[in-house]
Amino acid sequence: MNHLQGMSMEDADVTRQLAQFIVESKFDTLPSSVVKEASRAIVNCLGCAIGAAQHDTVNFAMAALAPFFGSPQAQIWGRSERADILHAALINGISTHVLDFDDTHFRAVHPSAPVLPAIFALAEWRQFSGKELVHAYVLGVEAEIRIALSVFPEHYDRGWHITGTAGVFGAAAAAGKLLKLNVEQMTWALGIAATQSSGLREMFGTMCKSFHPGHAAQGGLAAALMAEKGFTSSTRALEAKRGFGQVMSSRFDPSVITNALGVEYELSKNMYKPFACGLVVHAVIDACLQLRHQHHLKAEDIASVKATVGPLVLELTGIKQPKTGLEGKFSVYHAMAVAIIYGAAGEAQFSSEVVCQSDVANLRSLIEVEVDPTVRKLEGYVTVILKDGREIKCHVSDALGSLAHPMSNQDLEDKFRSLTANILNTKDANQLLEQCWNITQLDDVGSLMRLTSI
Amino acid sequence: MNHLQGMSMEDADVTRQLAQFIVESKFDTLPSSVVKEASRAIVNCLGCAIGAAQHDTVNFAMAALAPFFGSPQAQIWGRSERADILHAALINGISTHVLDFDDTHFRAVHPSAPVLPAIFALAEWRQFSGKELVHAYVLGVEAEIRIALSVFPEHYDRGWHITGTAGVFGAAAAAGKLLKLNVEQMTWALGIAATQSSGLREMFGTMCKSFHPGHAAQGGLAAALMAEKGFTSSTRALEAKRGFGQVMSSRFDPSVITNALGVEYELSKNMYKPFACGLVVHAVIDACLQLRHQHHLKAEDIASVKATVGPLVLELTGIKQPKTGLEGKFSVYHAMAVAIIYGAAGEAQFSSEVVCQSDVANLRSLIEVEVDPTVRKLEGYVTVILKDGREIKCHVSDALGSLAHPMSNQDLEDKFRSLTANILNTKDANQLLEQCWNITQLDDVGSLMRLTSI
Repeated sequence: MNHLQGMSMEDADVTRQLAQFIVESKFDTLPSSVVKEASRAIVNCLGCAIGAAQHDTVNFAMAALAPFFGSPQAQIWGRSERADILHAALINGISTHVLDFDDTHFRAVHPSAPVLPAIFALAEWRQFSGKELVHAYVLGVEAEIRIALSVFPEHYDRGWHITGTAGVFGAAAAAGKLLKLNVEQMTWALGIAATQSSGLREMFGTMCKSFHPGHAAQGGLAAALMAEKGFTSSTRALEAKRGFGQVMSSRFDPSVITNALGVEYELSKNMYKPFACGLVVHAVIDACLQLRHQHHLKAEDIASVKATVGPLVLELTGIKQPKTGLEGKFSVYHAMAVAIIYGAAGEAQFSSEVVCQSDVANLRSLIEVEVDPTVRKLEGYVTVILKDGREIKCHVSDALGSLAHPMSNQDLEDKFRSLTANILNTKDANQLLEQCWNITQLDDVGSLMRLTSI
Repeated sequence: MNHLQGMSMEDADVTRQLAQFIVESKFDTLPSSVVKEASRAIVNCLGCAIGAAQHDTVNFAMAALAPFFGSPQAQIWGRSERADILHAALINGISTHVLDFDDTHFRAVHPSAPVLPAIFALAEWRQFSGKELVHAYVLGVEAEIRIALSVFPEHYDRGWHITGTAGVFGAAAAAGKLLKLNVEQMTWALGIAATQSSGLREMFGTMCKSFHPGHAAQGGLAAALMAEKGFTSSTRALEAKRGFGQVMSSRFDPSVITNALGVEYELSKNMYKPFACGLVVHAVIDACLQLRHQHHLKAEDIASVKATVGPLVLELTGIKQPKTGLEGKFSVYHAMAVAIIYGAAGEAQFSSEVVCQSDVANLRSLIEVEVDPTVRKLEGYVTVILKDGREIKCHVSDALGSLAHPMSNQDLEDKFRSLTANILNTKDANQLLEQCWNITQLDDVGSLMRLTSI
């Protein structure tokens, strides 16, 4: 199906238009709000990756691939090892996504996991400045999200993990910008990316889910490096009959790739998760935290809790009494219980130890959840009935982390510190945060990267 | 659409069945004809790769990626460099396919280019025997071709380059066999392969076409190495609703993957090209060579030539007067002219020099080609009218290189020598051929690999 009016998809020429936009973009034309958003995304990304750096998924990938690492060009975040930039991009892409705590564009894709690992590695190796990195990052996200939305949601519904399939374009575009590719080379970089585009949703629940953004980071970076040396691809990889859009979707709309390009920036629609579980339970967690704070709520005073939620919540997170930390992430009951007991719902509250505690299990058993199809994804209602008969209520219309109610910079710092507390010392964490907030002042991104080492 | 009768695709469990077959297969159960075919495929593959080792496509990939090579674990064929095994698999996969002179399964896929580069590199590094390598190769091709045919031709028609999309499974299966993965690990290797499956036909005519088998070799090898260390994927990557078969095709037939598994071997249906151009013109080249040989045909004696060919020939190779070597490959006129003048149609006859020669151009102008839709793909008719008025004819029903009329071992040796003449010295070429023919006697494949170095 062709959404372009009076123009065939093949005539659209969007690969070249996108390439030209990326090549010709000047840093000074970026809105300052978008540049600031980049710092927020970087703080969030590095916190997630460093916090997950010793996860089994990362350890197993390291064990398998370290024998093939090249020169130690770039840092593996939150670990002591260094690697060639292609492997650093892969491993850091995996660790950024493995907790599923990384950023989310409000419509689709985890934007940073495929892009930042690729260009941080390249920038560290080639000593690019913070301004150059931020510029490349903003443009990479722009390419990635626009290409994703040109096939979304049908492409995702069919079974493609869009963070992988679109992420590879983001990495290629961003790395290509750092490498100062010309327009023809940039079309090749996008083409070499297109022909590597992959990642199946069947892998959700396995280690391959976080492999996808890592693989996209590595493949996109390689695409830009190959294009730089003259390795050719089709220059019409997005719109051609046998190109990405038409082969990997039946609802490709090329106009999405170029409409208002340079006017609206997709990074400004980026969201960060305050809680270490699925977005659909964020509203009721937020409500429980507010009730706890306003009413000094304690578990022992509670007779029962009732939540009213949107249609997906019980389907995705309906486990009443989870047995493991991972199951806890798929239990709206557990998420609400820890919010009330601990005043938090971070990685620590989704450990197997906490999941198995009797006070948490008791509170979970007092919670009832009712689905109301009119409740929106980031909305929720919580009513607590106390043993003394009082009833207290909270309605959250836009959960913390939504575009309407974003995490503050302080919230993002707190999340970063919580994720990295056992890994970085306070001095390094402070310095790293300071460099992230002031990244556009850095002459060489390598100084920031060295602070991610343990 | 579901071709399985009375059984849903998701119930098919073919990923596990295929994994189990590969894991449990014993070398001694392979038919001896299949083991011999492996040597023929290896001679053909190494000849193509060594002959193309200095092609721009290979040079540009080397220039871009050499800065990231790890330890020199494996030889880059036909060159002096060594690389880590993942990069060796990539580069050798590119060089095997770049001339489009490598092997072709009679229905679909270039079987060797994604598989042999992966397992030769692994076998060289870990010092596996020739028997282990051949066993892994046969099974890798089996997995690759069966998975390809489970979605062919719809998957290819939609725009997927099936040598890339199916090749990654072949590399993973073969490397996994060498690594002695257990059944669960083998299902993971196939899953990590599935989620990397990629390659768009839009790239035909660019350097990315030969990137596809290289990328498949590298990705499949990484998949097996990761699975060995416990990196998990879905164990139902082929048949699941959001797995390879249903996401990347609308005509997936899982039964093709397991029917008569271990009874018929797909490698026995492998074909080798005698001529350095598309298969569709092989029959008329063969006819011209026969006429030249039988009648001592000389260009200066010819008044005109008429060929009758199948329906695709003019569409694919209709350039009447090509200007470059590459255009020469897409000219049935040129292919016939060089066959008559040189008695050969190898790489040398498709050089730009030969294409521009006046005697060749003159003969091309005397050739007329007529399409007859009843003529089969590997069939052709040639009639030559001599200046003395005589008319001589040849009908080729199955061109040299077809399954009905395969290249002999001597033909394959001649092709190998012709491709490698300017690169290997005669002594090394002789030794290399001897080791290929006797590969199952080798204790360590590394000795053969070292002979591919210059």
